[in-house]
Amino acid sequence: MFKPPTIAWEDNRVVMIDQTRLPGELILHRCDTVEQMAEAIRSLRVRGAPAIGIAAAYGVILGLQGCSASTFEEFEEQMERVMALMRATRPTAVNLSWALERLRSVAVEHKGASVAEIKKALLVEAQAIHQQDARLCRQIGENGQELVHEGARVLTHCNAGRLATGGIGTALGILYVAHRQGKKITVYADETRPLLQGARLTTWELMQEGIPVTLICDSSAARLMARGQVDFALVGADRIAANGDVANKIGTYNLAVLCAKHNLPFYVAAPSSTLDLALSDGDQIPIEERAAEEVTEVCGRRSAPLGVAVSNPAFDVTPGGLVSAIITEKGVFRSPYRRSLSRMKNHRGNQGPARL
Amino acid sequence: MFKPPTIAWEDNRVVMIDQTRLPGELILHRCDTVEQMAEAIRSLRVRGAPAIGIAAAYGVILGLQGCSASTFEEFEEQMERVMALMRATRPTAVNLSWALERLRSVAVEHKGASVAEIKKALLVEAQAIHQQDARLCRQIGENGQELVHEGARVLTHCNAGRLATGGIGTALGILYVAHRQGKKITVYADETRPLLQGARLTTWELMQEGIPVTLICDSSAARLMARGQVDFALVGADRIAANGDVANKIGTYNLAVLCAKHNLPFYVAAPSSTLDLALSDGDQIPIEERAAEEVTEVCGRRSAPLGVAVSNPAFDVTPGGLVSAIITEKGVFRSPYRRSLSRMKNHRGNQGPARL
Repeated sequence: MFKPPTIAWEDNRVVMIDQTRLPGELILHRCDTVEQMAEAIRSLRVRGAPAIGIAAAYGVILGLQGCSASTFEEFEEQMERVMALMRATRPTAVNLSWALERLRSVAVEHKGASVAEIKKALLVEAQAIHQQDARLCRQIGENGQELVHEGARVLTHCNAGRLATGGIGTALGILYVAHRQGKKITVYADETRPLLQGARLTTWELMQEGIPVTLICDSSAARLMARGQVDFALVGADRIAANGDVANKIGTYNLAVLCAKHNLPFYVAAPSSTLDLALSDGDQIPIEERAAEEVTEVCGRRSAPLGVAVSNPAFDVTPGGLVSAIITEKGVFRSPYRRSLSRMKNHRGNQGPARL
Repeated sequence: MFKPPTIAWEDNRVVMIDQTRLPGELILHRCDTVEQMAEAIRSLRVRGAPAIGIAAAYGVILGLQGCSASTFEEFEEQMERVMALMRATRPTAVNLSWALERLRSVAVEHKGASVAEIKKALLVEAQAIHQQDARLCRQIGENGQELVHEGARVLTHCNAGRLATGGIGTALGILYVAHRQGKKITVYADETRPLLQGARLTTWELMQEGIPVTLICDSSAARLMARGQVDFALVGADRIAANGDVANKIGTYNLAVLCAKHNLPFYVAAPSSTLDLALSDGDQIPIEERAAEEVTEVCGRRSAPLGVAVSNPAFDVTPGGLVSAIITEKGVFRSPYRRSLSRMKNHRGNQGPARL
């Protein structure tokens, strides 16, 4: 088990594992200002939808630390500026705006209080978002057990683990609980081009936990399935629309198509904060296009001709029709999602006690 | 247009573009001995099924250059040793054994001749294999035109171009002919992990020819198809079984599944020497498993934890049922392949005159 948490609030600043340096180096990165936090999110030092929500909340706290507003209106103005800075970092994961909305509500609730008191309340809320995420991960882990049989061979994509959350992870959280329950699971980790979160982060996490993991190139998943070496795929999510369409790391839709072709279940694990009922389908989810260099330079070395055109969407959208189940802290939801997910949003699930 | 040919016989030795150095450096690599040729093939300085056939043929010539046998039996013994060395380099592309068989037949035909005469005949045959491949590429390019419409948006995987053959390429050969005919085609090139032949070689070739090409990560092909940005996929082949099952670069089967899901044609281009009628289906095609480091080290830098388990098959098998057509120098063949391919093997196609 690795000791430093993925992200932490310490001595009025944020300390995080710099995930761009893993697995070669385990280095802590500090953010004292909201600008530093914006850089850290944009450059993926911290990534993963739930962790981005936590990071953005702490970013707002950092951005308001020096605030000397004398009226609520002044304070609110600065808060909105800081929130806009956070919101502009990455467009796809809805957890980011969800966390900002929670902070905004708390500020509004404390409208009559002093600026110092509002700042205190906001910090408490940011820490609550963080702690709650850890609790949700454990609950997702428990809820997912009905889908994981003894000896399951699981294919995963990107990283939906400790490094993507404030807890044990979403997709990988389910696998950690299964492992601790003694189910002899094995995992295939897609390396996940272009930024290799599977190769760099997922294998690293799973190896520390002692879960057998085999690294594969993204494009060899199909062969594994055709040879009967995979029982199901299990991934995280960055945003889920009301009809069950799932935005997640580029390559996820590919996997879902392969699962359908090979009659394998395709599961998505995410906290309910990843659900965006305001969007009726996945076509409305904004998909981040990232820099060409992520594809043309591998680990800092150029691997394609200068000047080549590149398409580098960071996410894709998997239609709900290809998703066998969505595992949240409130339970396991299945198609038709428009109905099951809207019911879920209104249902208060069992969030404790944690058994992990 | 780049000047040096992919591979050439010059002054009693072989000169080839060192494809492991592209696109950063255009460096010529020389082989004076069969051992050097074996190393060049194993390490992919020269790669691509047709080019491997040519390289292996020249490798045999190199291995027999110093042969001072006084009887045919002695000569044959050394030839078999040299051929075994070539055959052991890479197992999947059948063009390699096909080229060796052609040389063996020539040697046997010249059984009564002097060793010097046999060696001369073998060199002529190796050069004939090389020149014939160039001719076949042009013919494949012509034959494929019926499948390429004006403005076609083509997805390709790995490199089945000049760098993979003794001519203009197989899959890319079709695109070169289309381009010269004035069809305004555009190409999406899968980067093709782990060794990035798409990013390093296919984009480089196409850019030199002035064909618009966009580089993508392998796993974003699905999103492109879902958004209607691709008209068909077109790839090469390393071995084709009697029922139309196609062994090609890992990730090809993935693409074929995606094409079927999105109702897009999936085409394979290869010379008839890639056909192995001795194998009734693709399950019998030996699939090369390559070193873990190809996945865990990208451009020489480590991108995964030390000691992680890796599965790195270099090829996969696409069932003939997913292949819309196979384009060879003898024409365009369609399902049912067991019948069409066996007829093709016995048919002498039009191999000239070239129009490129």
